[in-house]
Amino acid sequence: MIKVQFAATPERWETYAEPMRAGFSNAGLDVDLRVDHTPDAVDYVIYAPNGPLKDFSPYTSCKAVLSLWAGVEKVVGNTSLTMPLCRMVDPGLTAGMVEWVAGHVLRYHLDIDRSIATQDQWQPRVPPLAMERPVTVLGLGALGRACAETLAQLGFPVTGWSRSPKVIEGITCQHGDDGLTRALAGAEIVVLLLPDTPATENMLNAETLARLPRGARIINPGRGPLIDDDALLAALDSGQIAHATLDVFRIEPLPAEHRYWAHPNVTVTPHIAAETRVVTSAQVIAENIRRGEAGEPFLHLVDRELGY
Amino acid sequence: MIKVQFAATPERWETYAEPMRAGFSNAGLDVDLRVDHTPDAVDYVIYAPNGPLKDFSPYTSCKAVLSLWAGVEKVVGNTSLTMPLCRMVDPGLTAGMVEWVAGHVLRYHLDIDRSIATQDQWQPRVPPLAMERPVTVLGLGALGRACAETLAQLGFPVTGWSRSPKVIEGITCQHGDDGLTRALAGAEIVVLLLPDTPATENMLNAETLARLPRGARIINPGRGPLIDDDALLAALDSGQIAHATLDVFRIEPLPAEHRYWAHPNVTVTPHIAAETRVVTSAQVIAENIRRGEAGEPFLHLVDRELGY
Ligand SMILES: NC(=O)c1ccc[n+]([C@@H]2O[C@H](COP(=O)([O-])OP(=O)(O)OC[C@H]3O[C@@H](n4cnc5c(N)ncnc54)[C@H](OP(=O)(O)O)[C@@H]3O)[C@@H](O)[C@H]2O)c1
Ligand SMILES: NC(=O)c1ccc[n+]([C@@H]2O[C@H](COP(=O)([O-])OP(=O)(O)OC[C@H]3O[C@@H](n4cnc5c(N)ncnc54)[C@H](OP(=O)(O)O)[C@@H]3O)[C@@H](O)[C@H]2O)c1
Repeated sequence: MIKVQFAATPERWETYAEPMRAGFSNAGLDVDLRVDHTPDAVDYVIYAPNGPLKDFSPYTSCKAVLSLWAGVEKVVGNTSLTMPLCRMVDPGLTAGMVEWVAGHVLRYHLDIDRSIATQDQWQPRVPPLAMERPVTVLGLGALGRACAETLAQLGFPVTGWSRSPKVIEGITCQHGDDGLTRALAGAEIVVLLLPDTPATENMLNAETLARLPRGARIINPGRGPLIDDDALLAALDSGQIAHATLDVFRIEPLPAEHRYWAHPNVTVTPHIAAETRVVTSAQVIAENIRRGEAGEPFLHLVDRELGY
Repeated sequence: MIKVQFAATPERWETYAEPMRAGFSNAGLDVDLRVDHTPDAVDYVIYAPNGPLKDFSPYTSCKAVLSLWAGVEKVVGNTSLTMPLCRMVDPGLTAGMVEWVAGHVLRYHLDIDRSIATQDQWQPRVPPLAMERPVTVLGLGALGRACAETLAQLGFPVTGWSRSPKVIEGITCQHGDDGLTRALAGAEIVVLLLPDTPATENMLNAETLARLPRGARIINPGRGPLIDDDALLAALDSGQIAHATLDVFRIEPLPAEHRYWAHPNVTVTPHIAAETRVVTSAQVIAENIRRGEAGEPFLHLVDRELGY
């Protein structure tokens, strides 16, 4: 009997308990999934940063901590976590992110909000085709790559940027500091899908925002700290950035006094871009437990040095 | 020298004259393109319904009338037009329609307007995945088929409906009256890409709207007469239809007193879904002229009986 501790919020436990048990049994795993195992008997921890677990040291025989979230910035620096840490790569979450990003890129591309006619304004303005609208995706991981590929299928010329070099069919791939300059030059829409790490903090700042063509638009479904908020607000005020759609913030919910709320050229969404989906994520977690039991390498291992 | 008469608005002439001439010369055609040929000397007419030409009878040696528009409802019943009539099938126009439809389907799917947070409302609501959101496209011609295929690529289960039976990979194809019932049952979003003909007029009426699941949404980039406006307004009032996005109307611009303007659940766009694009449409017209000169069958011939 494999002992798995579920350490997320009680609401998650309600939605996940049964589908997770089904996922384990479909995978042929004999799992005892609970929220109240004795810590030192636990084999695996399923974890979310907003759950009850802060100190991993009592989990002395735990073989891996399996995150329910794709972003691990809140746990990666936890020194009590000495066992392997896996982030969530879930086809359901990826599909949701692709749909959200495609929807918001098309909203900008078609200028949907301003294309809506009013009684005293019937002004047909037809946008350029997607093929004439360069889009850049910062981050080419599980999410960035899937978004880049779908945007390319929709006809946009897509540039992607990552830490290490990549070759992806139909995408212009850039990496490193020089690559960033090339990725930003000419980008009319920029999508942020980087993890929150020391190296990515304030990636969009006064200097990088200035390298974009005037009137560029920013979509951030990544993490709040990727953007220097004061620099973005200044760029929005000057018109260097025409509009920003922000799903994530340094503090969430976004505090009532934050200038983003009042800015006419900012759309705020409440961290909804993509959610881990129960059934598909249960399969991913089951597969990692199977691997752990078989002594095979875990999928989606976090590099604790790099922070993602 | 092939004599081609350009019979659209003066603004079109300004944008089209040079690219069209370039398209003809690239196709190896020796064309004299003008707005003022002597009618009985003209070999081909390039036509738009909002242009100057109403009576085709002086064009006694004209081999074909080549429409700049995809929809030919305004000319198909013109009894003075006795030569072959070709509608516009333009890859540029198709791309624009696909982008517009994908953008508006995703706007509905993600509930973008209501997902935008306000200072006193931070309510994360994550939509179902596209795979859980059935979409139906009425019309599987040049435009409907391309839209259906792109929506399927985005993950939506797509049903398409046409007059004649079709087989399209990844799309559930329906046709005829029984097929319409099946195409409407379960459709959460319906896209209208039918031509305006006697058979399609008021296709969406009290009876067909009632066959949709409660809360369905309608997107009409086809033609205004496809919808019985009173029936749609009643269905919007009752909540049977949750929202409608309408790009085309029986009278355009939509008259100031029309109830659509004031309805909270109607989005009006000013006939902008897709426009014929200069360079690609010039290639299409050049190819049809080449065919006419070579005695080969024309592309995109209109069936005058069916009206499209
Ligand atoms: N808003 C939401 O609802 C939501 C939901 C899920 C996830 N997210 C966010 O999305 C982020 C991305 O998720 P993912 O699963 O795609 O992560 P991932 O697979 O780890 O991919 C991260 C990508 O960022 C690149 N990267 C990391 N550090 C970099 C640096 N210093 N310079 C350049 N590129 C760098 C990586 O480059 P390499 O490929 O070279 O390693 C990789 O391509 C998550 O970390 C999370 O914050 C948000
Ligand atoms: N809003 C805009 O900006 C804009 C721009 C361009 C075009 N449009 C509109 O879009 C329409 C469609 O263009 P298209 O190029 O795709 O036309 P198309 O290639 O002629 O396709 C028409 C489709 O409708 C189907 N159809 C026709 N009559 C039918 C009936 N009685 N019952 C069921 N299906 C029927 C046809 O079925 P079969 O395949 O069996 O023949 C075909 O699949 C145009 O007519 C125009 O009105 C709007």
